[in-house]
Amino acid sequence: MPTEPYTLILLRHGNSTWNQENLFTGWVDVPLSEVGVGEAKRAGELLAASGLLPDVLYTSRLTRAIQTANLALGVADRLWIDVKRSWRLNERHYGALQGKDKAQTLAEYGPEQFQLWRRSFDVPPPPIADDDPYSQVGDPRYADLGDDVPRTECLKDVIERMLPYWQSDIQGDLALGKTVLVTAHGNSLRALVKHLDGISDDEIAELNIPTGIPLVYKLDAAFAPLGPAEYLDPEAAAAGAAAVAAQGAKK
Amino acid sequence: MPTEPYTLILLRHGNSTWNQENLFTGWVDVPLSEVGVGEAKRAGELLAASGLLPDVLYTSRLTRAIQTANLALGVADRLWIDVKRSWRLNERHYGALQGKDKAQTLAEYGPEQFQLWRRSFDVPPPPIADDDPYSQVGDPRYADLGDDVPRTECLKDVIERMLPYWQSDIQGDLALGKTVLVTAHGNSLRALVKHLDGISDDEIAELNIPTGIPLVYKLDAAFAPLGPAEYLDPEAAAAGAAAVAAQGAKK
Repeated sequence: MPTEPYTLILLRHGNSTWNQENLFTGWVDVPLSEVGVGEAKRAGELLAASGLLPDVLYTSRLTRAIQTANLALGVADRLWIDVKRSWRLNERHYGALQGKDKAQTLAEYGPEQFQLWRRSFDVPPPPIADDDPYSQVGDPRYADLGDDVPRTECLKDVIERMLPYWQSDIQGDLALGKTVLVTAHGNSLRALVKHLDGISDDEIAELNIPTGIPLVYKLDAAFAPLGPAEYLDPEAAAAGAAAVAAQGAKK
Repeated sequence: MPTEPYTLILLRHGNSTWNQENLFTGWVDVPLSEVGVGEAKRAGELLAASGLLPDVLYTSRLTRAIQTANLALGVADRLWIDVKRSWRLNERHYGALQGKDKAQTLAEYGPEQFQLWRRSFDVPPPPIADDDPYSQVGDPRYADLGDDVPRTECLKDVIERMLPYWQSDIQGDLALGKTVLVTAHGNSLRALVKHLDGISDDEIAELNIPTGIPLVYKLDAAFAPLGPAEYLDPEAAAAGAAAVAAQGAKK
């Protein structure tokens, strides 16, 4: 019989082509940049060196998270594990901001509005128009959603669509004693960390998750953390979180 | 409601490092060679150009098939589709021949015995010893098999373990109207083609499936082919099949 502690590994995808161009991405399906490819391979090296071997992979429906997982698992010689994907692990939908330049948006709307859209718990950006080239209405990735495809989301919305999947699917594999790797995005992982660590709606704004560094939770039988989660490379994680926090200030 | 014809795409993995070294591989989990990486990407180009867009991917538990699928789907912008893996799609277990040089085996045992092991319908090679470095006993990929991990297989054995999966899982996705991509191996695909095309036990020895070229079936509601399957690049497929037939004669 499997026994606790259960092992849950969270991995935020590496740098994408639109991160490099400083554009709001959300549900727009852009690939990893060369930098991101390197980050993903490094994550695989960290996994292999840690001896933590995922038995099952969960990803979003977005290519940058899937590429990150495939590259990391390739390096760790675990490409053969089972894979489950869901839009519920997708990045926050950035609404009408998708495809917009971050620095330009900052200049146009000012730092207060900009920070509200980026970090407010419950204020979403304006919805994206269905005929916008960066809308996901009609995207075959989300055929199962029909007309319920999001047009914008705040972090609260992400929590509401992510948590049911955590409870219905991911917890089930943990309960079987499987080491679970979740490869996803800044905001879907912040949503999960907020839940696991009991972070308040106010305090979550300050939490930044660095890209490409596995974050390991040990959980009890009720899926509560037995202690603080640990990054496999704590120094790089601290530097990475600071870099995320500074984002948007880029000119 | 989905309607027939259903679309089934078969893809044999590209050249592996052990193909290049002319070694019997079977269940030994070797990666693609550089040549195989190129074949996989070319398969993705063929898929994209054909307009045939897989909705769900089936692979074996072997890295070379998984890499082939990931590379092809990456090129075709379909990395985000659902993925299901099973040992039932694995290559034939080559028994005690795993890890052996093909030309050396041919020289040692003679052409008759060699061809019997390679192409006989129901004569498996000698079983591999459990303490052989190329045995899969204890391999975490097959933890669910317990002590039932194969020690050797003939094509008849492959059919017997592959067909239940075809019926229980793959047919289910076809019946939902999904375009199914199966990325697997020379012998697991020969087993499926034998079943679909009603090829006799004697005639199957002559069938060779080329690497890296998608083979497309259109199936009726009873999962029977509506006509001959078609390779997306018929000229390359004919040349590739001839190359497979000539294998083992290499010195």
